[in-house]
Amino acid sequence: MDVFIEPIGKLINEFSKLPGVGKKTAQRYAYRIVSMTDGEVQTFAEAVLDAKRRVRFCKVCGNFTVAGEELCAICRTRDKSTICVVKEPRDVVALEKLHTYTGVYHVLHGVIDPMNGVTPNKIAIKELLARVQEGGVKEVIMATNPDVEGEATAMYIANLLKPLGIVVTRLAHGIPIGSELEYTDEVTLERALVERKAL
Amino acid sequence: MDVFIEPIGKLINEFSKLPGVGKKTAQRYAYRIVSMTDGEVQTFAEAVLDAKRRVRFCKVCGNFTVAGEELCAICRTRDKSTICVVKEPRDVVALEKLHTYTGVYHVLHGVIDPMNGVTPNKIAIKELLARVQEGGVKEVIMATNPDVEGEATAMYIANLLKPLGIVVTRLAHGIPIGSELEYTDEVTLERALVERKAL
Repeated sequence: MDVFIEPIGKLINEFSKLPGVGKKTAQRYAYRIVSMTDGEVQTFAEAVLDAKRRVRFCKVCGNFTVAGEELCAICRTRDKSTICVVKEPRDVVALEKLHTYTGVYHVLHGVIDPMNGVTPNKIAIKELLARVQEGGVKEVIMATNPDVEGEATAMYIANLLKPLGIVVTRLAHGIPIGSELEYTDEVTLERALVERKAL
Repeated sequence: MDVFIEPIGKLINEFSKLPGVGKKTAQRYAYRIVSMTDGEVQTFAEAVLDAKRRVRFCKVCGNFTVAGEELCAICRTRDKSTICVVKEPRDVVALEKLHTYTGVYHVLHGVIDPMNGVTPNKIAIKELLARVQEGGVKEVIMATNPDVEGEATAMYIANLLKPLGIVVTRLAHGIPIGSELEYTDEVTLERALVERKAL
């Protein structure tokens, strides 16, 4: 006999599909659902379905937008002369939390990674080129992650954009604020040394 | 402007209601939902609703059972002369995973905790007494947690059952197998010393 009754077993299985959720955590989540009121569970399930039903990608930048709004709120209202290029929508969230960036974004939905079959045409590079070629763009900030694929993607795109006379910049790499030199990894430390700045 | 569009913000809020889930984790879950196929999201939401709709409590032991089955599979098929008393359905799961216990359970749905307003009549103690008074029960194993409330509840129930001529036992406390004496907390170590057994 199974240790879980069927509807709970199924729910545990579904929760296990979420990132970083193992059987034990999924079990805790399932029990919480069962102990919620009917109304609370209804609201929960509706939010899940609604997020899938009502979330679209912005036709310009590729970030999330609400169904019915072709352009996201950022593309509708912000300075279009600066485009910040990121890998995923979650990177937009990280930058937006600063409340200091006033430009727009371009979400690539991936980075170039030939080992895993992600060639440049599989991510939104040509859409970025089209935006730039429409004119009015002064600077493109490459904000892909500082890993091998992120760096390669940034270089690849920079090489495409520079001939168009666009200023292409990259987020600074270096020692994180508040950390200690002693515990900074060698690659970061070397990068910080090479890219040292005049005081 | 909010960093999340409304349907995603709502879903993050719902996921945050699950135990141990903060904003950051809820955000990861929400993004996973959005990146699932329509069918996968439908299955996920259905499992949530279904768990709430189809899960009932067994009329005898108080553990989970499927709607339509008054008695849970354990109460229907197992040896009723031994009842193992636990705090919550999750404790049944922990014991069932051993595959060695052949008796039935009684889920209290809480433990006596007067400081938080949980008096003996608020948990399923009278239901346990009724089961025992029906006859045929030889042993009641108290398997509440080894904390203050769990111990007090075990003692309280034992005092009610002993006059009925029932053998009342308690799960053994002591040094966990595989752990080291040096790192065992003092309370556990003292308990292990007091309850030492002849070899």
